[in-house]
Amino acid sequence: MPPQQNWSPAPELVVDQWFNTDEPQSLGTLRGRVVVIEAFQMLCPGCVAHGIPQAQRIAQAFPTESVAVLGLHTVFEHHAAMTPVSLEAFLHEYRVTFPVAVDRPDGAGMPATMQAYRMQGTPTLILIDALGRLRKQWFGAPDDITVGAEIMRLVSENAASR
Amino acid sequence: MPPQQNWSPAPELVVDQWFNTDEPQSLGTLRGRVVVIEAFQMLCPGCVAHGIPQAQRIAQAFPTESVAVLGLHTVFEHHAAMTPVSLEAFLHEYRVTFPVAVDRPDGAGMPATMQAYRMQGTPTLILIDALGRLRKQWFGAPDDITVGAEIMRLVSENAASR
Amino acid sequence: MPPQQNWSPAPELVVDQWFNTDEPQSLGTLRGRVVVIEAFQMLCPGCVAHGIPQAQRIAQAFPTESVAVLGLHTVFEHHAAMTPVSLEAFLHEYRVTFPVAVDRPDGAGMPATMQAYRMQGTPTLILIDALGRLRKQWFGAPDDITVGAEIMRLVSENAASR
Amino acid sequence: MPPQQNWSPAPELVVDQWFNTDEPQSLGTLRGRVVVIEAFQMLCPGCVAHGIPQAQRIAQAFPTESVAVLGLHTVFEHHAAMTPVSLEAFLHEYRVTFPVAVDRPDGAGMPATMQAYRMQGTPTLILIDALGRLRKQWFGAPDDITVGAEIMRLVSENAASR
Repeated sequence: MPPQQNWSPAPELVVDQWFNTDEPQSLGTLRGRVVVIEAFQMLCPGCVAHGIPQAQRIAQAFPTESVAVLGLHTVFEHHAAMTPVSLEAFLHEYRVTFPVAVDRPDGAGMPATMQAYRMQGTPTLILIDALGRLRKQWFGAPDDITVGAEIMRLVSENAASR
Repeated sequence: MPPQQNWSPAPELVVDQWFNTDEPQSLGTLRGRVVVIEAFQMLCPGCVAHGIPQAQRIAQAFPTESVAVLGLHTVFEHHAAMTPVSLEAFLHEYRVTFPVAVDRPDGAGMPATMQAYRMQGTPTLILIDALGRLRKQWFGAPDDITVGAEIMRLVSENAASR
Repeated sequence: MPPQQNWSPAPELVVDQWFNTDEPQSLGTLRGRVVVIEAFQMLCPGCVAHGIPQAQRIAQAFPTESVAVLGLHTVFEHHAAMTPVSLEAFLHEYRVTFPVAVDRPDGAGMPATMQAYRMQGTPTLILIDALGRLRKQWFGAPDDITVGAEIMRLVSENAASR
Repeated sequence: MPPQQNWSPAPELVVDQWFNTDEPQSLGTLRGRVVVIEAFQMLCPGCVAHGIPQAQRIAQAFPTESVAVLGLHTVFEHHAAMTPVSLEAFLHEYRVTFPVAVDRPDGAGMPATMQAYRMQGTPTLILIDALGRLRKQWFGAPDDITVGAEIMRLVSENAASR
C-alpha cells in the first residue's frame, strides 16, 4: 500500500439547473459512491469528440450504484451561444443520458464550480472518491485504459473499506 | 460520353444572413464555377462528425477558383437552440472558414432552401455544375473517394467546354 | 466485498521460442505480478487493428513491476505463412517491445497453450492475478475502460493483500 | 484546358507471380483503362492501415471497365518474412480481391518494378492513364478526396477523347 496521503475534500457543486434528473444532485448526497464529473462546453470540439463520448463509455462500463457519472456545463466563453436552451437540444441530439448540471455563471468569465476546481479549460475529467475527496483532475483527453484503471482504484478502495 | 442528359437548374439560395464573407453569395454570381453546398445543423452529430469535416477537406483539395464550397445552416428542429448567435460561435470553434448562409426560416418546420431542394435531413451534400445545374444530392455520409470523383467530373466538364 | 470465489490456476505457458526477452518467461516466475496475455496471430486483422495496439496501451499505462504484458503467437491457421521468421519482422515493424512467445504447434490445428485455455480464436486477451489464477478471458475486442478497470481490480487486490 | 504536357510512358510491370487472377496482367493489355497500382509490403503498417484499405475503396468506387486496380507486392526489406506463401494468406485474411502481383526480386534490395518507378518506399500509389502514361505517384497516404479526383480526371480525359 502506498503511504497514507491526505486528500482534500472536493469543492461542492455550485449549479443552477439540472437536466436528465428529477432531483438536483450534490457531492454530499453522492457520498459512498465514486463520482466522475465531465466538465464540458457544448461547442468545445474536444469535448464533443472525446470528453462526452468517454463519459458515456464510463457510464456504460461501471454500475451506477458504485460510480455516479455527472456532466457539468462550464461555460467560460461564447456565453450567449451556449444557453441552457441550446444545451438541452445538445444533450438530446448527442443522447447524453447521465445527469448534467449548469455551472453557475459569474459574469463574463469562468463559472463558479469551474473556479473552485481551478480548471484550466474544457474538457476536464474529475474523479472524486467515495469519501468525497478530489483524487484526479485531467485537462484534455486522458486515455481510456488509465481512466478505467483510476476509477477502479477508487471503487476497490471503497469496497475494501466496508 | 454518356448520352446527353437534361439536368434541372438548381434552386437559388433563399437565405437571411452570411458568415465568413463580406458579401452575400448566390448561385447566379457563382456561375462558371462548380458549387458544393454542405447543408447542416450545428447540433446534428452526423454533421459535426462527418459533414462539416468533409466540406473542409473538399475546400482544401480543390482550388477556390474552380470549386466554391458553401455551408447552409438548415435548421428544421430545435429552432431556439440553433440561432445565428450560436452558429457564429460554432463556426469559430470548429474553424469553419468557407462562407456559411442561414437558410430562411419558414415557421416551425423546414426552412426555405431546404424545402426547395426537397432535402430529407442533415447532413446533405449538394453538387451544382458550372452551368448552375443540380447534379448530385447525397443525404448522409457519402465516401470521400466518390465525392472527390464527382466534383472532378464537373470540373473536367467545365474545363472541356471552354 | 463480493463473496469469496474459487478461481482456477491459469494453465502454464507451453511455448517454443521467445522474442523481446533474453530469458524465457513463465507464469511461475511472474507470480506476484498481474499478468496480461495478448494471444494473437500476425495475419489476423482484428489482432493488428485492435488487439496488439490495446496490449501496447496496457504496457504503457501500467508500471511493469506490477503488470507484466506478454504476447502469445497462437497460430491455428495458415501455419506456413506465420512462421517465427515472419513474426520477428512483424514485431519489428509494429514496434512491439513486450516479450512475445510462440505457442507450441500441435500439428495442423490449435497450438498447445491455446488449447489449454480453450480459446475460441484471436485476438484473445487474458488476465491472470498475482496468485497465478485465471481471472478474465475475452475473445474479440473488449473496450479499453473495462480492460483498464479489470487490470486495476487485480492490482488493487494484490496491493491490499500485502 | 491546361497547356499540353508530355507525359512519359509508365514502365511495364516486371513481376513473377499473380494472385486473384487467372491470367497475368500487363500495362499493355490494360491500355484503354485507367490503372491504379497500390505498391505495398504485407508487413508495412502504413500499407495495412491506409494503403490497402484505400485501394479497396477505389476498387469499390469506380467501375472495373474504366479503372483497373492492381496490387504490387514490392518487398525491399525482411525478404524471408514476406514470401508469396505469406502474401497469399495475407490477401485472404484482409479480403483483398483485386489482382496482386509479386514484384521480381533483385537480390537483397529493391525489386525490379519498384526500381523502374524509382519508388521511395511503401505504400506508393500510382495512377496511369488510358494511354499508358504515368500521371501520379504518391509515397505515403494521400487523402481520399484528392485520389478520387485525380482518378476521375483521367477517366474524364479518356471519355472525352473517344
